[in-house]
Amino acid sequence: MTKSELFSEIKKKKTFLCIGLDTDINKIPKCIKNSSDDPIFEFNKAIIEATHHLCIAYKPNLAFYEILGTEGILAFEKTVKFLNEKYPKHLIIADAKRGDIGNTSEAYARSFFQQMNVDAVTVSPYMGEDSVKPMLKYANKWTIILALTSNKGGSDFQMLKTEKGNYLFEEVLQKSSKWGTDEQIMFVVGATKAKMLNHIRKIVPNHFLLVPGIGTQNGSLEDVALYGMNKECGLIVNVSRGIIYASENDNFVEEAVKKAEKFQQQMSKLLEIYI
Amino acid sequence: MTKSELFSEIKKKKTFLCIGLDTDINKIPKCIKNSSDDPIFEFNKAIIEATHHLCIAYKPNLAFYEILGTEGILAFEKTVKFLNEKYPKHLIIADAKRGDIGNTSEAYARSFFQQMNVDAVTVSPYMGEDSVKPMLKYANKWTIILALTSNKGGSDFQMLKTEKGNYLFEEVLQKSSKWGTDEQIMFVVGATKAKMLNHIRKIVPNHFLLVPGIGTQNGSLEDVALYGMNKECGLIVNVSRGIIYASENDNFVEEAVKKAEKFQQQMSKLLEIYI
Repeated sequence: MTKSELFSEIKKKKTFLCIGLDTDINKIPKCIKNSSDDPIFEFNKAIIEATHHLCIAYKPNLAFYEILGTEGILAFEKTVKFLNEKYPKHLIIADAKRGDIGNTSEAYARSFFQQMNVDAVTVSPYMGEDSVKPMLKYANKWTIILALTSNKGGSDFQMLKTEKGNYLFEEVLQKSSKWGTDEQIMFVVGATKAKMLNHIRKIVPNHFLLVPGIGTQNGSLEDVALYGMNKECGLIVNVSRGIIYASENDNFVEEAVKKAEKFQQQMSKLLEIYI
Repeated sequence: MTKSELFSEIKKKKTFLCIGLDTDINKIPKCIKNSSDDPIFEFNKAIIEATHHLCIAYKPNLAFYEILGTEGILAFEKTVKFLNEKYPKHLIIADAKRGDIGNTSEAYARSFFQQMNVDAVTVSPYMGEDSVKPMLKYANKWTIILALTSNKGGSDFQMLKTEKGNYLFEEVLQKSSKWGTDEQIMFVVGATKAKMLNHIRKIVPNHFLLVPGIGTQNGSLEDVALYGMNKECGLIVNVSRGIIYASENDNFVEEAVKKAEKFQQQMSKLLEIYI
């Protein structure tokens, strides 16, 4: 998916919501767990079918699938296939936070972009340019580099000041934005650090940012839009647990839709204000 | 596996070699590829049975298994099971370079330490303490934190100077060594930066270091021992391609053994000199 295709989906649907499919077998409602041989996929399918008009992306976090071994990987692959076939205009982000030496990153790139056919993969920048470059060879695919994450430990190293007076995450943005174009690279910037977005936009004015930390982690959507939105929106805001686990009961789909609708309505207003 | 058990294996076998099972389906000799339904596992099994007396650890890199989807994950799991059953005194390192927010890292920890039953997992420090802590809850399991990696891009951020005058990797060593003990945490330090080991030993004198970069990447084993060995050895030196792809032909096992023997003999001498 290209940048302009992504922006046109955002304008059409008046939303920049990404729904995180962090599907935890221990949190799936009993009605699904008891009635299906493939509860993870059935849960995802139910969520996707009910919410696809409210979001422009889905982001399964690989950890929740890998924990189930081959069964989980199958459910992940089935989910991606289902999205590619039925909702091909949604961006599929494999939240994998990979990053390894060249030949290994090449293997990851082939795995995600060719075999599994997702649109985007999250990567850690710690191992530098040759750990990211193999990802950039694939046309219309996205590499999403961790810059400033929303978790508490995000400050441990990302907020260290370098001798030039920059934070480490600023050096990451500056250096890694030169490894490819804003048609290939996005960055993760947590909503819990929303005020930093103002400054981040000076370094990467045109890149899309994937923003976790709204919902359970209490970031402010208004602040994210105020400080982070650019003329092509430039934001994909992810909510996982705050939507998919809105209810533990039989009504989990209805409750997830209600939550997603609320975000979509807020986003629609913010797009009107800033674009 | 505890630290003293690891050291006693090193003394007994006179080796601190780890063999990297970066088993690439495209590089497996034809004789195995054509005769087996499960060539990845068969290749690993052949390498393990022929080399187990020459090394104290095996390190499969997950990327090479994930690229094959569920089939690859099955081969990985079979390899781990085989090692646990037949060679339980070898340290099994899942080279996964994971690292995510708390609840996701918990999923990874359960996945690797409980479901798959490996002894150690490599993790990236970029997301900080809460991305590593869930790994440390498992008794006799190891979390191996990337500090200074052997690849070219390793210098991009790891060698940035902070305002305190330290390199980033030094801050990583200083801070993350306080998250747990040297019975729980190891660090990755590339052999291509061997002279740094002298300085690294001042920060983490007692931790085991996992050292890639010998072999194909041209690091020096002598330098690694000279600058990095401590009184309990403290080193696990990994060689992957330099051993497992020593030959592309039917004689791949013999050639792998020859290479591994050469490393073991060198290591035996170095252990005699320094311990």
